[in-house]
Amino acid sequence: MRKPQLVRTDGLPDRVTIYEVGPRDGLQNESAIVDVAVKAEFIRRLADAGLTTIETTSFVHPKWVPQLADAAELLAELDLPDVVRAPVLVPNERGLDRALAANVREIAIFASATETFAAKNLNSTLDEQFAMFTPTIQRAMAEGLTVRGYVSMCYGDPWEGAVPSRQVVEVGARLIDLGCHELSLGDTIGVATPGQVTALIGAFTAAGVGVDKLAVHFHDTYGQALANTLTALREGVTTVDSSAGGLGGCPYAGSATGNLATEDLLWQLDGLGIRTGVDLEKLVATSVWMAEKLGKPSPSRVVQALAG
Amino acid sequence: MRKPQLVRTDGLPDRVTIYEVGPRDGLQNESAIVDVAVKAEFIRRLADAGLTTIETTSFVHPKWVPQLADAAELLAELDLPDVVRAPVLVPNERGLDRALAANVREIAIFASATETFAAKNLNSTLDEQFAMFTPTIQRAMAEGLTVRGYVSMCYGDPWEGAVPSRQVVEVGARLIDLGCHELSLGDTIGVATPGQVTALIGAFTAAGVGVDKLAVHFHDTYGQALANTLTALREGVTTVDSSAGGLGGCPYAGSATGNLATEDLLWQLDGLGIRTGVDLEKLVATSVWMAEKLGKPSPSRVVQALAG
Repeated sequence: MRKPQLVRTDGLPDRVTIYEVGPRDGLQNESAIVDVAVKAEFIRRLADAGLTTIETTSFVHPKWVPQLADAAELLAELDLPDVVRAPVLVPNERGLDRALAANVREIAIFASATETFAAKNLNSTLDEQFAMFTPTIQRAMAEGLTVRGYVSMCYGDPWEGAVPSRQVVEVGARLIDLGCHELSLGDTIGVATPGQVTALIGAFTAAGVGVDKLAVHFHDTYGQALANTLTALREGVTTVDSSAGGLGGCPYAGSATGNLATEDLLWQLDGLGIRTGVDLEKLVATSVWMAEKLGKPSPSRVVQALAG
Repeated sequence: MRKPQLVRTDGLPDRVTIYEVGPRDGLQNESAIVDVAVKAEFIRRLADAGLTTIETTSFVHPKWVPQLADAAELLAELDLPDVVRAPVLVPNERGLDRALAANVREIAIFASATETFAAKNLNSTLDEQFAMFTPTIQRAMAEGLTVRGYVSMCYGDPWEGAVPSRQVVEVGARLIDLGCHELSLGDTIGVATPGQVTALIGAFTAAGVGVDKLAVHFHDTYGQALANTLTALREGVTTVDSSAGGLGGCPYAGSATGNLATEDLLWQLDGLGIRTGVDLEKLVATSVWMAEKLGKPSPSRVVQALAG
């Protein structure tokens, strides 16, 4: 199989952690409901390809996300090696109860950086969302769990347009203060360009949240995800979210949410000699297999090129 | 229509020239043969959107590129404002004769950086291709034409794999010595990553070919085009090739040649406050119109997002 030529360049990290969101963020945004056995096999194959951080599912109420209604059943089926971290998304204390019952060791919570999205997604104000997160995070930490904080709509919001960095940093810093070990800065609608990325990371570090606590999460809706990721790497970020095969983005529809494909990211990182521990060939084979299960082609350009 | 938020960042040029290749490189790689009146309207609309450098067609023999067999007829129909540069591709002296008969003022010639592609595309060796170019360039210059030199397969070749920078620079420097005012460094199979881009531009400047003479031409086959373009801008390059609507790349097939879409490029440049003179809204409308004529959706993510 074709591989990128390795040519290093200055100013980039030696190693990057790929935070794989395909099984959760990817499958949650696919219209098909995937069988639990297929999900389990998918996650096993991702781990076998070398991914060491895989967000496996969500304990959001099945009414909202029927695609992941089998979260408990899935986790019971999984038997991942100890080296693999397998966080799950938890919206609130009820979700935390279910996660604890499933022996989860890491959770992620999902915050909004804008009032409108907080209202639409969480039925709360920007401020009120913390009434939900605070007890969830505190109880999770008391149980010894680690907590990741997603901050969504960091670079733009479909209703409000531009989002002030100050507002994003305020939400993020509050999550860190509550005990989150990491923030994932999400470009939920995929509109960001590199100047915004540099500015937002700079605003966080100026507020005392170091790059070691920041992960980036770009959507490829406007084709900008990989250039923005490269920009974040230059700013010192070393954790990047992506979705195997670009799951969760529809390549044909205008409404594409468009997660950055792990393979497209990995092609760049492999070419730059940035270590990830992930095997591109195994990953592509996994995404081709998953695309067959979903009955639609992968939107990942690397998967399309290598599987063609 | 949604627009990117403007946030500048250091180390990038203030202004970029977009060298639009859609009518030539794009349409040449589409299976449909487009009516000459539609091509003329397409080019007029591109110029109206603010593009000032538009490669309109090719005088390659129609046997090889039937899509552009109407080159002379198309040029006779065009009546572009003086501000628009309208180069055409010319393979050899016979093509130059046809270009001169059509009152063309700028041409581009297409060289290979690898032996295998020279053999397959030009039926010559790396060295022998200059036997074809030398008289073509010399006569063109004697007629007062400017000549752009494409160098293809700069970052990898489907048959040879890695391509030594030295070899690319040798071909490029020879074209400059012959009188080319600009080189377009093509990632014909879309495999490059940013380290290669920085290294190749560095190799050219070390050999005395300044960045002011370099344009970049990335294909998005592996999803890397925009990140590589950003890298080239950081190295001081200010001319970028792209194709309106991503014409010439098939979004669904494994064989996608995948020109970088002008809209995806423009979203980034507009966001960074880099001036191009191009109106995104008019350009998207043009690509939507052209996609209807071709009967297939544009592979540009920006076009998909904004037209959805």
